[in-house]
Amino acid sequence: MQIFKIGVIGGSKCNSKILRLAEEVGEEIAKRGAVLICGGLGGVMEAACKGAKNKGGTTVGILPGIKKESANQHVDIPIVTGLGEARNVIIVRSSDGLIAVDGRYGTLSEIAFALRFEKPLVGLHTWNVDEHIIKAETPEEGIEKLFEKMKGR
Amino acid sequence: MQIFKIGVIGGSKCNSKILRLAEEVGEEIAKRGAVLICGGLGGVMEAACKGAKNKGGTTVGILPGIKKESANQHVDIPIVTGLGEARNVIIVRSSDGLIAVDGRYGTLSEIAFALRFEKPLVGLHTWNVDEHIIKAETPEEGIEKLFEKMKGR
Amino acid sequence: MQIFKIGVIGGSKCNSKILRLAEEVGEEIAKRGAVLICGGLGGVMEAACKGAKNKGGTTVGILPGIKKESANQHVDIPIVTGLGEARNVIIVRSSDGLIAVDGRYGTLSEIAFALRFEKPLVGLHTWNVDEHIIKAETPEEGIEKLFEKMKGR
Amino acid sequence: MQIFKIGVIGGSKCNSKILRLAEEVGEEIAKRGAVLICGGLGGVMEAACKGAKNKGGTTVGILPGIKKESANQHVDIPIVTGLGEARNVIIVRSSDGLIAVDGRYGTLSEIAFALRFEKPLVGLHTWNVDEHIIKAETPEEGIEKLFEKMKGR
Repeated sequence: MQIFKIGVIGGSKCNSKILRLAEEVGEEIAKRGAVLICGGLGGVMEAACKGAKNKGGTTVGILPGIKKESANQHVDIPIVTGLGEARNVIIVRSSDGLIAVDGRYGTLSEIAFALRFEKPLVGLHTWNVDEHIIKAETPEEGIEKLFEKMKGR
Repeated sequence: MQIFKIGVIGGSKCNSKILRLAEEVGEEIAKRGAVLICGGLGGVMEAACKGAKNKGGTTVGILPGIKKESANQHVDIPIVTGLGEARNVIIVRSSDGLIAVDGRYGTLSEIAFALRFEKPLVGLHTWNVDEHIIKAETPEEGIEKLFEKMKGR
Repeated sequence: MQIFKIGVIGGSKCNSKILRLAEEVGEEIAKRGAVLICGGLGGVMEAACKGAKNKGGTTVGILPGIKKESANQHVDIPIVTGLGEARNVIIVRSSDGLIAVDGRYGTLSEIAFALRFEKPLVGLHTWNVDEHIIKAETPEEGIEKLFEKMKGR
Repeated sequence: MQIFKIGVIGGSKCNSKILRLAEEVGEEIAKRGAVLICGGLGGVMEAACKGAKNKGGTTVGILPGIKKESANQHVDIPIVTGLGEARNVIIVRSSDGLIAVDGRYGTLSEIAFALRFEKPLVGLHTWNVDEHIIKAETPEEGIEKLFEKMKGR
């Protein structure tokens, strides 16, 4: 059986409403038995990891820096790249599909790479820059649509 | 005297109108004594390098692959990264300012990194995704505005 | 409780004696509850992953290419970098300690990075180039010495 | 006419005898009309760049950090990678041939990559770890042997 890897992309700074959405996204991913991939830091990344762990999931944090201690406390597997923002490419390449939640320029770069590599991509209250981003209003709808898209491949 | 490094970002595939614009961009860069940095491949990159060489400039191509032979014939200094699209970060970091000409998703990732790293950025018939992209209609206007912005720092 | 990440480095081509050693290395790592990190391909990497899975361990493969399918069948978490040999740095940075088994030039680069980053490093029938490589004759001895060194930090 | 790119690898800390050797290496490279590629920092890198500029050569510094100001003052073209030690791969890939002068573990990683990618490689008072490293006692002898090897390809 294939275990899907789902990338959650979003900023390290966001408001509490976005944090709740991100936590739900993590929960939905774990409920479907998928592994959560993210940048491993705070904000959306931390909330999503927390959600995944709430439901017994597995989390991977692909860190920009050189210290594993920079990972949020809900990361099971820290990947320490030391590559700075170039690690964004690895998050996208390692994911079978991605969901963007809010986010600023770093997230925009990841959206661009997801489109470039033709990965299924859902957007939840994020950059609206391309028709290939599947829009969703809720975490449940977003993850549902993402899995449909991945299974259809 | 400081020699500016100007990044030209844009796709490897584009129409002939865009090619002419890119060549002019390269010419304007060289006329100001700046070094042109790009991804080293075809399309906008090749036309811009050609323009720079028309005016006696210097060109650097930061290549995604492992063969220097993949550089277009107008690249003076090929940098062979073998990093694939992760090399986009290096193009942006190595530039004092950038101009985006047309382009698809790869260019969008570079625009995102330029915004992330707070680099002066001009857009010429390209992605219109953020207020910090300085708009221009012609190569001359674009390079003029870019130099003003860089000198004001 | 801290879960150690142990890097196993070695070539994709080796003889059957080395394969048996690598499999035992993987078993010893899993028996101690540590996560195995490697380059995700064949040879020493595959044998070590097989050993870890024999004992119910978890395996991470940090791949050089752009296809997750290039991972050997015993990799639980493929990290798809697309960075070619530059991914060797990530293997070393992500590991709390490493064991080198046999290996050619790629392994030598990883040994060099492990020494550079001052990671505990055990050598089992591998490059003998520096006094800071802890020598071992058997997998059990090697992993035993590696854990002693990591715990002493 | 092909312009050769020669990588000079060596540490950022070394004694004055090594600095003089590195400066001569840079002079010999520039005298042959080749471009010097290096890591762009101090020590061997700075001395080699100084030597190349003494003879009117061109120098490229592939920097590990995110600031172009970290380049030594003799670097013409700073390439700002932000990749840390992963940039060592780029130095090697961008060079048609390399000469190692002294050096510690970072240099050892570059030697390993040069051997891996089958690049002509000369060693001057450096790691003696493989039969494919061409030994030399003086800068002139080293660069002479390196050019012979590159031209024979």
